[in-house]
Amino acid sequence: MRRCVELARKAIGCTSPNPMVGCVIVKDGKVVGEGFHPKAGQPHGEVFALRDAGDLAENATAYVSLEPCNHYGRTPPCTEALIKAKVKKVVIGMVDPNPIVASKGVDRLRDAGIEVTVAVEEELCKKLNEAYIHQMLTGKPFVTLRYSLSINGHILDQLGEGVEEAGGYYSQLVQEYDAIILSPTTVTEKFSFPASQEPGANQPLHILIAKSPISPNQIPIPHTEATSKVIIFADNETAVEPEMVQKGIETVVLDQINLNAVLEYCKRQGLCSILLDLRGNFGYFEDLLKQSLEENLLQKVVVEVLPFWSTNEEEGLPLALKNLRKGIRLKNITSRNSNDSVVLEGYP
Amino acid sequence: MRRCVELARKAIGCTSPNPMVGCVIVKDGKVVGEGFHPKAGQPHGEVFALRDAGDLAENATAYVSLEPCNHYGRTPPCTEALIKAKVKKVVIGMVDPNPIVASKGVDRLRDAGIEVTVAVEEELCKKLNEAYIHQMLTGKPFVTLRYSLSINGHILDQLGEGVEEAGGYYSQLVQEYDAIILSPTTVTEKFSFPASQEPGANQPLHILIAKSPISPNQIPIPHTEATSKVIIFADNETAVEPEMVQKGIETVVLDQINLNAVLEYCKRQGLCSILLDLRGNFGYFEDLLKQSLEENLLQKVVVEVLPFWSTNEEEGLPLALKNLRKGIRLKNITSRNSNDSVVLEGYP
Repeated sequence: MRRCVELARKAIGCTSPNPMVGCVIVKDGKVVGEGFHPKAGQPHGEVFALRDAGDLAENATAYVSLEPCNHYGRTPPCTEALIKAKVKKVVIGMVDPNPIVASKGVDRLRDAGIEVTVAVEEELCKKLNEAYIHQMLTGKPFVTLRYSLSINGHILDQLGEGVEEAGGYYSQLVQEYDAIILSPTTVTEKFSFPASQEPGANQPLHILIAKSPISPNQIPIPHTEATSKVIIFADNETAVEPEMVQKGIETVVLDQINLNAVLEYCKRQGLCSILLDLRGNFGYFEDLLKQSLEENLLQKVVVEVLPFWSTNEEEGLPLALKNLRKGIRLKNITSRNSNDSVVLEGYP
Repeated sequence: MRRCVELARKAIGCTSPNPMVGCVIVKDGKVVGEGFHPKAGQPHGEVFALRDAGDLAENATAYVSLEPCNHYGRTPPCTEALIKAKVKKVVIGMVDPNPIVASKGVDRLRDAGIEVTVAVEEELCKKLNEAYIHQMLTGKPFVTLRYSLSINGHILDQLGEGVEEAGGYYSQLVQEYDAIILSPTTVTEKFSFPASQEPGANQPLHILIAKSPISPNQIPIPHTEATSKVIIFADNETAVEPEMVQKGIETVVLDQINLNAVLEYCKRQGLCSILLDLRGNFGYFEDLLKQSLEENLLQKVVVEVLPFWSTNEEEGLPLALKNLRKGIRLKNITSRNSNDSVVLEGYP
């Protein structure tokens, strides 16, 4: 099952709105076929693994990280493929939370006389598709807040050395999300658009929150193929210059910039996972951040602790957050090193 | 060698001013003797391991985490014990930085015809005795700063749940130090004296920094055998009440409370490792902390990240630290979980 998850992760960030799924076919103790779901619209992991196994799939055991589907979507049901290939046994990491699958896959396999075991390495499989599961159960995008903190508690407008390069936590994190919410400062004064440096990585949509007049010269046009499209959310009072439209930048004007409204837009666009990235001018984020904390809009928090004691007096928490009505407490905290930084992850 | 370090650590906190040392005697691929240095004044690890091995030590290989001593201190030199036991080979983790040992042990063994290998798992052995090495090389105590931080960067006057219990990082940390510097608030308003809950743990001396008049009723007498003695550092302007002396609390009056002066006192008392524990009233610590950062007085920093977003406006950095002339940058950062907290350790 761990190999299934490893295979599934090869398509990290590429399968949305579908889950990542890996499948391994084992016969007489040997792996005879492997596969994963590479991209929405393409066949599922089971199909690739069965193709890989060929005739050897007969009487074999199929391990699959998520319950095989039993419905006709963009591809035929995987349950039928497994039945047709005459596998003897199917070991399933977790039941699919998608209401149109929801154990029907397991039932169909059992009805066909196949032995089925469910919930093997379930926690690992759930973690793999945490965004998909959240979106299936709630209908809302999975929102992760990320920021950097110095060891003396300053929230910083900078990342650790090397973390944006291939293999760094930031490069790996970015590819997992359908969209990143940024402030315009992030992409003008100091930074280019965040992009994952992982080979073949998914590049998320960039959502800019504009609360003051933005001149088109402040928004750099993505100049590499790797960087994906940009949407600007602006409020009624923000002067959105016509030149931006000429630059190919989509602008969404809202009565008031509000995280719920942005997330509602994301949901309608089929964006399942959103990274609220606290870089750039924190002023743009105050209200959004406050709202995200007070209204329980966050599913995950990623904190990068930078290994120094900052002496910059101007750095620190945005003022509005000092009167926060409600904090959050993280569960299932994990930590790891990425270059000289320590990365904490937890779930409110 | 890893087993030597494991054995050595059984005496954590108990060997000061001596280093921790573990020794394993191996013959024909089998461990025939093990030992460690339990306490200053008692025999060294090699002696216990050789006793354990008995006649089997002849032609065996002795693994020892620190270079065997070659001088008569409170115990006879370990080199002679190894020569007398006729070991064939000695594998040494690291050379002793003590100038009266400094490779003389290695030379003596080689002169006696014993094969010697040096610097095996050297980093691990150095980490084991980081305080001892620092003290040997500089003549000064090894100083560690510890504090707790919420995920939104508030330095907090609290510890994570369970970290003070046996097995928690705080309980384990405390036993490693000869002394802990605390503020009186720490031991009066909310806390009792910090004590390690590890079985048979060393309990450090408690040093209280008093910058305002302290009433004797504010200083609780250590009431368990586990808690060791208390020293109060007070400045000229602090009214030290005579009753304190009756309570058996030693008071040291300095012209001005100054970390260097406190450390100089510690040095004269033979205290090799000091934990500057940022609990209680941060006001007491402002100057000391500022001085420790600006004058490079810290050898190690331990930061506990608590898994919540604090909403208490009053919490935060002491004011004086906002004008810090110089920050610090940590190297060799590590992180680990302790209950729901994440503990970062690094070296300025």
